[in-house]
Amino acid sequence: MENPLHLLMNPKSVATAGAGNNPEKMGTLQALSIIKDGYQGKFYPVHPTDGMVLGHKAYASALDLPEPPDLAMLVVPTKQVIPVLEDFGRIGTRRAIIITAGFKETGADGRSMEDRLNETADRYGIRFLGPNCMGMLNTQLSLNLTVANLTGKPGSLGMASQSGTYVTQTLAYLRKRGIRFSKAISVGNEANINIIDALEYLGEDEHTKAIILYIEGIRDGRRFIETARKITPHKPVLAQYVGGSGAGARAGMSHTGAMAGPDFLYDGIFKQAGVIRVHTIEDLYSHGWALAAQPPLRGRRVGVMTNSGGPGTAISHHADLGGLDVPRYSEELQSRIRPLIPGHASSANPVDLTFHLDMQLLSTQIPEMIMQSGEVDGVILHGAMATGFMREVYPHLRGLLNNIPEEQFLDRFRKDMTETVLLPRKYGLPLLVSSFFGDDDDYTKAYQDNDIPVFDSPEKAARAMASFLRHKEIRDRKTIIQTDLPERSDEAAQIIKKALEHRQHALDEFQAKKILSLYGIRVTRESLTMTADEAVQAARGIGYPVAVKACSWEVMHKTGKGLLALNLRTEKEVRRSLRSIRQAAGSSVPVLIQEMVSGIREFVAGMTRFEGFGPCILFGLGGVLTEALKDSVWRSAPLSVVDAQEMIQDIRARKLVGEFRGMPAVDTTALAGILQRVGFIALLHPEIAEIDLNPIIIAGSSPIVADALFVLG
Amino acid sequence: MENPLHLLMNPKSVATAGAGNNPEKMGTLQALSIIKDGYQGKFYPVHPTDGMVLGHKAYASALDLPEPPDLAMLVVPTKQVIPVLEDFGRIGTRRAIIITAGFKETGADGRSMEDRLNETADRYGIRFLGPNCMGMLNTQLSLNLTVANLTGKPGSLGMASQSGTYVTQTLAYLRKRGIRFSKAISVGNEANINIIDALEYLGEDEHTKAIILYIEGIRDGRRFIETARKITPHKPVLAQYVGGSGAGARAGMSHTGAMAGPDFLYDGIFKQAGVIRVHTIEDLYSHGWALAAQPPLRGRRVGVMTNSGGPGTAISHHADLGGLDVPRYSEELQSRIRPLIPGHASSANPVDLTFHLDMQLLSTQIPEMIMQSGEVDGVILHGAMATGFMREVYPHLRGLLNNIPEEQFLDRFRKDMTETVLLPRKYGLPLLVSSFFGDDDDYTKAYQDNDIPVFDSPEKAARAMASFLRHKEIRDRKTIIQTDLPERSDEAAQIIKKALEHRQHALDEFQAKKILSLYGIRVTRESLTMTADEAVQAARGIGYPVAVKACSWEVMHKTGKGLLALNLRTEKEVRRSLRSIRQAAGSSVPVLIQEMVSGIREFVAGMTRFEGFGPCILFGLGGVLTEALKDSVWRSAPLSVVDAQEMIQDIRARKLVGEFRGMPAVDTTALAGILQRVGFIALLHPEIAEIDLNPIIIAGSSPIVADALFVLG
Repeated sequence: MENPLHLLMNPKSVATAGAGNNPEKMGTLQALSIIKDGYQGKFYPVHPTDGMVLGHKAYASALDLPEPPDLAMLVVPTKQVIPVLEDFGRIGTRRAIIITAGFKETGADGRSMEDRLNETADRYGIRFLGPNCMGMLNTQLSLNLTVANLTGKPGSLGMASQSGTYVTQTLAYLRKRGIRFSKAISVGNEANINIIDALEYLGEDEHTKAIILYIEGIRDGRRFIETARKITPHKPVLAQYVGGSGAGARAGMSHTGAMAGPDFLYDGIFKQAGVIRVHTIEDLYSHGWALAAQPPLRGRRVGVMTNSGGPGTAISHHADLGGLDVPRYSEELQSRIRPLIPGHASSANPVDLTFHLDMQLLSTQIPEMIMQSGEVDGVILHGAMATGFMREVYPHLRGLLNNIPEEQFLDRFRKDMTETVLLPRKYGLPLLVSSFFGDDDDYTKAYQDNDIPVFDSPEKAARAMASFLRHKEIRDRKTIIQTDLPERSDEAAQIIKKALEHRQHALDEFQAKKILSLYGIRVTRESLTMTADEAVQAARGIGYPVAVKACSWEVMHKTGKGLLALNLRTEKEVRRSLRSIRQAAGSSVPVLIQEMVSGIREFVAGMTRFEGFGPCILFGLGGVLTEALKDSVWRSAPLSVVDAQEMIQDIRARKLVGEFRGMPAVDTTALAGILQRVGFIALLHPEIAEIDLNPIIIAGSSPIVADALFVLG
Repeated sequence: MENPLHLLMNPKSVATAGAGNNPEKMGTLQALSIIKDGYQGKFYPVHPTDGMVLGHKAYASALDLPEPPDLAMLVVPTKQVIPVLEDFGRIGTRRAIIITAGFKETGADGRSMEDRLNETADRYGIRFLGPNCMGMLNTQLSLNLTVANLTGKPGSLGMASQSGTYVTQTLAYLRKRGIRFSKAISVGNEANINIIDALEYLGEDEHTKAIILYIEGIRDGRRFIETARKITPHKPVLAQYVGGSGAGARAGMSHTGAMAGPDFLYDGIFKQAGVIRVHTIEDLYSHGWALAAQPPLRGRRVGVMTNSGGPGTAISHHADLGGLDVPRYSEELQSRIRPLIPGHASSANPVDLTFHLDMQLLSTQIPEMIMQSGEVDGVILHGAMATGFMREVYPHLRGLLNNIPEEQFLDRFRKDMTETVLLPRKYGLPLLVSSFFGDDDDYTKAYQDNDIPVFDSPEKAARAMASFLRHKEIRDRKTIIQTDLPERSDEAAQIIKKALEHRQHALDEFQAKKILSLYGIRVTRESLTMTADEAVQAARGIGYPVAVKACSWEVMHKTGKGLLALNLRTEKEVRRSLRSIRQAAGSSVPVLIQEMVSGIREFVAGMTRFEGFGPCILFGLGGVLTEALKDSVWRSAPLSVVDAQEMIQDIRARKLVGEFRGMPAVDTTALAGILQRVGFIALLHPEIAEIDLNPIIIAGSSPIVADALFVLG
């Protein structure tokens, strides 16, 4: 099925409903954008009373139009949205953008109106953006449906945003920073076309070289992952998510009615999808633009070129933090650089020219030697400046220079920068620039005009380069092959069914582990016993030491309540423990006799269902410290092998997975298998609300589930 | 003793040596800054050949000057620095700034020249900044000794920087952002006056309301802490440190010859000193300026006011991350806001006007209601815009408005903003503004001119407000009372002395714990035994279960090598373990019989000496996971009680310190006592190179040291 945005973003004709001649209305501003910014298609204003709108013949109703426009933009009052859309549907228009607000984001009444809006659209096969959105831009067509104005040549950065501001109010901000969109899409309430459709469309769009997403909430997490995964191995996708905290979620809810999920979940989902997460709108724009505009990074080695020590040190530090290397140059390369720089300056990397006004050296000659050398995979340059700095010192120098006029003075410092700006393309290496002088500096302007990103401080350039490394890691990811779901186990289904018939809210440990075993997860050897003799016999069969636990679904939090005894070594100890457990839990409680698994490495695996995402899997550091340390990561089920392996490498305590204090490395194939299977169990048995396997003890190298909780519901 | 910068920063007369008439030389630019930027004191150029410098009578040598200038600035070639300084010394000048580079940062020769420079200065009682620095600014005197130009009114932000760029090349950058210095000091190589002197001076300066430090390395960590601690309870101090990574440290070394320490150490030192750490130069400037310019935050409640949902959500999210609250407004307050905003807009907090051109409501009326309400402690505002936005839409509207000229069009949107910009002072609450329109927007300009910081994206405003909260927490810190060092234990000194005589590189566990006991630290009960019978007798005395360990200073890493047995419950087990330990470690090794302390909470305390900082103390999560989790913090010894208590609350696993899984809260007085005493031991016994107490097991609520390693050297 073709993505609905192909037609919506590339219409041969556009109609507006609601745009008139009042310059203080949003609709007027948007119609003006269509008329003034160079769009070559047809424009049809629909207006109930005005015969002319902004110099164009207007039509009283869509029904009067000479042809069905490819796209209709509605900026009418809320109550008129449905009838007006109906008119367009009747004449055969199949794409719309509904700017008008007042739907789902306002509460129950708005929500039902939004439902009716969708029904109307469905009736006519209309696909639409919005409502409550700010329009879109397609710079290849010079088509601008926002209130702001669009100038300059087309860019290569595609955006889809759950905030309209980020495709309208920021256009001047972006222009100053040299950032240029290919397409930008404000998705609003996503009643019909959603941000995943937009992602898919931008993934297919040949003019878009990198994609940025502003997200307050995703409604279909699984489709998001599948869609992004197809794109991210070849085209960078970056996302900002701000809905994951209490205040952020409340603000997002009233903004676009988005249902937000917790921050940690989105963190995992983005990783699973190969999406680079950033945390500010500035990083979203600037890292996205850098990745869209510059060649990819092929290794982790970065050359730093500067005329100022502080910025050079700051760049090196942040490159380091981002996982990049700032390698010391070979003696051979240094010996070629040294004659070009002052005696007290460093040639090692960073190359620091120190305060120096020879910009040819700084911006071109030395960077070219470094790029040529094969010793770096990318370059960060700080300090190139021409008119920016000279404009600063001109007031002081004027008198000394016979009152030469400012522009004439500045002309002395203007020069051909063609060679400079061609460097990254010539050598196929990314170049990122940092400068304290804005776009009134010739260097900044030349770089920006030639797709070389300029950051207004050194750390930002280094951090953007780290996003290049993230993209390289994503390109290098192992191919993700989705494992098929296993067959559902009838025996497991029976256990759950019986538990529900007995009105259990949870399975008891024995039941839970039985299900785990049925799906091939290794659990502690254990027997359920009713009498002391049975218990002793079971202990003998399992072999000492053993653990003894009260086993009842109502007993969930065992430790510290006398319902559990560990490390029992003799029959006498087993009998004594049984007595005290029965004293605490009642004489009829069944008792589990369990092998003691010994190992100092303990992990946790878990499952929770999140709205919009279905069952999600947790992996983390387990044992008694789980809650205190919260060292865990999340992914959405089903997990591929790669997903599960990545989870294991993604916790802070990942060192535990390798050889550790004389113990062998963890069998990560087995551990990843547990994570995958927990997901399968959740997908095959929707009656299970939550799963908590903690601890999973590593015995030698093998993970064994020592305790398990399944919550039903 | 008076701080040397009082005179240096406030000279009645300034001489330059090295500045001439060549506009391409740095010295010329610096002399022009003195002449052109409004300095009212006397200016004496010293030049060997030119009779006139920049229109001022020049003197061939300092010896020819009509009076000794208060300050001499040297921009002469490296080899001339010492003789020229000598001349100034001879005539009675007592302060100097040495811009010239080529000293310590270039290696051994430079280092010895820098030593001779200092000897020369000492001989004449000269205190100086530099060498290898970029000058200084004192805006109260309009005195500018940098190459850049200084305009605009004086500000309230003081800076001391180990990079000259940050007080010169960034002046245009700062002007655009409305950030204004009181004083700025480039400290260069710090041969004489160092960054701590500058910190102390700025702390005393009444025109400086907040202090920012750019740091690549601190040479006297203890003085830094003591100095900062006097300032930070009333004046905010912020620092950026970039020397803590491999690449950053190497870059810093070649830049100013700074010896960098690890990042984690500086993190702890800044906390100990009450210094707010930031990670980018942008945050350093902008958070510092915001704290200098706005009233302090008195609680954690922030009101968010916006005309755009995305930025409102992003602000809320980042406020949340920073520990701020974005409280839902009372029904009463909301009922007063609601009539002012569109029906579909939110009144709860954020108040989101949605796209709306009534700037009076957004910038003044509603913010004033919120400030008046007493429901917030500070306000963040996004979206106020006037000429910035109108300039954007003018090209589209021009035709519609009879081709009204741009400035005339913009005039329609200009208005008196006095009431708006007075709000924060009127209510004594900080106001931070976010806008995508730069200083060509009237609102931005008016805010900047009135000390209200404007950030170019919403997250930045929220993150700056979090720095206000950090400053509040520092103001609220308990008073730090330095505990006196205890008396040195002669017995401890004897143990160390004997160990050194026996050429031990470390103390054995028994010796180490003996010393801990002598200083009042509780350790496991234990006996050193030589025979199996002694061992059994000791075990009986201590009570089963016991641990048995080979005790020899050469055996440092015991686990996994068969030199240790835990949890022995019987005489038989003790004898068996002894045999296998002796088999592994040799039959003559003494064996320690030790009580088994049981407790699932394990911590680590340690001591390492760092160059420039002396003994530093580590506290963290202990036990077998120590290395894998690296959850630890550092401080410099001696620790006050407050320092030690703050360390305990500063680890990620701080939850363990409270009541935990049925166990009582940790006795933090005892735990803090251990940390303090480890510091005392290190200060009293300089022969100890390192201390490692791991684990410290919490038995019930009491911390007991179960293993100890002291490295000598």
